[in-house]
Amino acid sequence: MPARPSPSGRARAPRGFCLWLTGLSGAGKSTIAHALIAHLTRRGRVVTLLDGDVVRTHLSKGLGFSRDDRDTNVRRIAFVAGEVVRHQGIAICAVVSPYEATREECRRIVGAERFVLVYVDAPLAICEQRDPKGMYARARRGEIPHFTGIDDPYEPPTAPDLVLTTTGGTPDAHARTTLRHLERRGLLPRVARRSSPVSRTAAERRRRASRATGDR
Amino acid sequence: MPARPSPSGRARAPRGFCLWLTGLSGAGKSTIAHALIAHLTRRGRVVTLLDGDVVRTHLSKGLGFSRDDRDTNVRRIAFVAGEVVRHQGIAICAVVSPYEATREECRRIVGAERFVLVYVDAPLAICEQRDPKGMYARARRGEIPHFTGIDDPYEPPTAPDLVLTTTGGTPDAHARTTLRHLERRGLLPRVARRSSPVSRTAAERRRRASRATGDR
Repeated sequence: MPARPSPSGRARAPRGFCLWLTGLSGAGKSTIAHALIAHLTRRGRVVTLLDGDVVRTHLSKGLGFSRDDRDTNVRRIAFVAGEVVRHQGIAICAVVSPYEATREECRRIVGAERFVLVYVDAPLAICEQRDPKGMYARARRGEIPHFTGIDDPYEPPTAPDLVLTTTGGTPDAHARTTLRHLERRGLLPRVARRSSPVSRTAAERRRRASRATGDR
Repeated sequence: MPARPSPSGRARAPRGFCLWLTGLSGAGKSTIAHALIAHLTRRGRVVTLLDGDVVRTHLSKGLGFSRDDRDTNVRRIAFVAGEVVRHQGIAICAVVSPYEATREECRRIVGAERFVLVYVDAPLAICEQRDPKGMYARARRGEIPHFTGIDDPYEPPTAPDLVLTTTGGTPDAHARTTLRHLERRGLLPRVARRSSPVSRTAAERRRRASRATGDR
């Protein structure tokens, strides 16, 4: 029984969903995730963030960077996200998740209709130039084996639900693009935009307010 | 803003909580957990079960049975339970969790007011006799090192919220005792009992029904 948006654009009950942000290290996944959390929190939603920092602290101890261990880690994140979604919560997973097959497995674990695959796209050269945590430099020195983009492959998604190209645009703009996508998919209720092309008169605002609270 | 039970005994919105069932292997934790899930599902609630089977499949690969690895595993379960509770869901954790200090850490991770520590109590001799998965036999043969109760200690909780002694009573009776505790703590709304000491007349049932749907 999905809660469809009503004619006023307001959904009946909050729906759970999982935003899965995939992309190279340094592409901007966590930054966009934090911008999204700010927006969603203002809308009164609770969000579980599963990004590199959270996962390292709470979920991935004991796992390495072999293909098997990476897959176990990514599936584990999907399991947690899936439980959050079952409780009608929002999970934002910001993880490299380099393999297409494993991401598609995550889609199945969470449930396809509640899973939104976002490709956070930036060329390797740009990510390596940003290198916010000095990881690429360490990987180039051979200190981190199996580093995605250096000596382990990244498979770009062939069918992402959304692509955010972070060579342009601010994290907030990318977050807003994502929110609009979620609204179109009926996973988030639409909210009135401040950037409405025609600014409303006071009378129009009063008329809309009385309509919203009146009987129907 | 906790949703307190209203005078009619009905809470305004479902509240999240974590039931943490601790006890020896074979004490009956998972069996009681499944009986609880049946009751809670009938009440329209969604439950995340984190018991041995689920944890082995989804969360604990890569961890062993050293004190450190056990603690990491138990903390990881608490992290997931805590996220479920943040989304107002119910998490039932049925894990040996033999160390008092770690259990108290779990209480902090989840949040004390939403954490219910249930000691599922049965003597080691009884658990070893039941041995549903042949684990004690294997531990006695030295095939499973650090097995709780055999060559690793179990610290009974010094301040459990509830003790269920499984040398008597059915799993369903233990589940009902737990539900009553949750109702008393305001974590679950009270429901009318079928086993009411005085059976209601048809007139009384009608009176109650009209009261429930009337204005107030």
